Amino acid sequence: MRDFVIVGHSAKTTPDFSLEDLPGTSGRMDVLCRCINSAFMLSHGIRRDVRCHLILMGGPEPKILRFDGSRLRHLNPDERSTAALIKRALSIDASPFWRESTPGIYIRKGDLRSLLESLRDDGQRLYYLREDGAQLSGTVSEGAFILGDHTGMRDDEEQLIESMGAETVSISPLSLHADHCIVIINWMCDNAAVRR
Amino acid sequence: MRDFVIVGHSAKTTPDFSLEDLPGTSGRMDVLCRCINSAFMLSHGIRRDVRCHLILMGGPEPKILRFDGSRLRHLNPDERSTAALIKRALSIDASPFWRESTPGIYIRKGDLRSLLESLRDDGQRLYYLREDGAQLSGTVSEGAFILGDHTGMRDDEEQLIESMGAETVSISPLSLHADHCIVIINWMCDNAAVRR
Repeated sequence: MRDFVIVGHSAKTTPDFSLEDLPGTSGRMDVLCRCINSAFMLSHGIRRDVRCHLILMGGPEPKILRFDGSRLRHLNPDERSTAALIKRALSIDASPFWRESTPGIYIRKGDLRSLLESLRDDGQRLYYLREDGAQLSGTVSEGAFILGDHTGMRDDEEQLIESMGAETVSISPLSLHADHCIVIINWMCDNAAVRR
Repeated sequence: MRDFVIVGHSAKTTPDFSLEDLPGTSGRMDVLCRCINSAFMLSHGIRRDVRCHLILMGGPEPKILRFDGSRLRHLNPDERSTAALIKRALSIDASPFWRESTPGIYIRKGDLRSLLESLRDDGQRLYYLREDGAQLSGTVSEGAFILGDHTGMRDDEEQLIESMGAETVSISPLSLHADHCIVIINWMCDNAAVRR
């Protein structure tokens, strides 16, 4: 199983944003929509062995969205239609337990700590992407990959991630957008899986 | 210099499409907007050594858009704002010669053949991306990379590309979207350039 975790520091936790101006009204949900595209889209289908988690922190109480490729439907590649699916998920009452809003899309209250704990408890190895990390090994074909949004990760978040036992890794000497990182990680994991 | 060439078989050559419904009204200009993002976007800037060419074929007379990273301004990562720049370029009169619509964005009448001839005359080595091609060498750091849109490439286009001396290469055993291919090619070329 391949998991992606993206922290959206300003991303709204309520559905009151405009699909006509995502960057200006949603707390940069457009960044997260592009991450969803990168995580799942293939030319003739969806990656069924991938899950993508968005931590939405632009509200009084953070929420987590989980996209699960094994059940995902109605996903199109454009930002706007993905944002519409997120809007729908944000319109239902969220509790501390997962609720499915549309096939394969789940929402619950929660923060980065609670998500990383559950992934670690599931036995997932954690990788934190940072430019100055050690080069990600070409033999890695699964794991949970943690990425910041356009503002990077805060110090306290980095401490939390480290305390969870995550390995800090890098895939490029350049500073790349999170959605581009996800494309490259998927590609590296595909290649590693083929070689095994 | 790194060039990307994407053929948009249904992409409109006129600005009468809706930014509120790109996939439904523009001949899938959303696909091409994502390619522009992949070609140029870095976390803290724009790739200055990249050019990206979009062949728009969804009109009576094809047009070519050239995005030149060395002069490009006003480019944001979201699809909608890139589509707005394209709309502006399509609103000016196009001739067989390049005209600049906004800094770094040029338009002219022309087709795939005329573009490939000019790239070849500039001394660019041509690479055509296809799943069953030979694996792209990890030593390639520049060249012109030719990609189809969501519908792939037509037989006559493939014959033209071959007649121009392009090498048919592959980067993945999976069928990937053009914008994801561009992310991976940029990454491979970055790595090759560092190793040189």
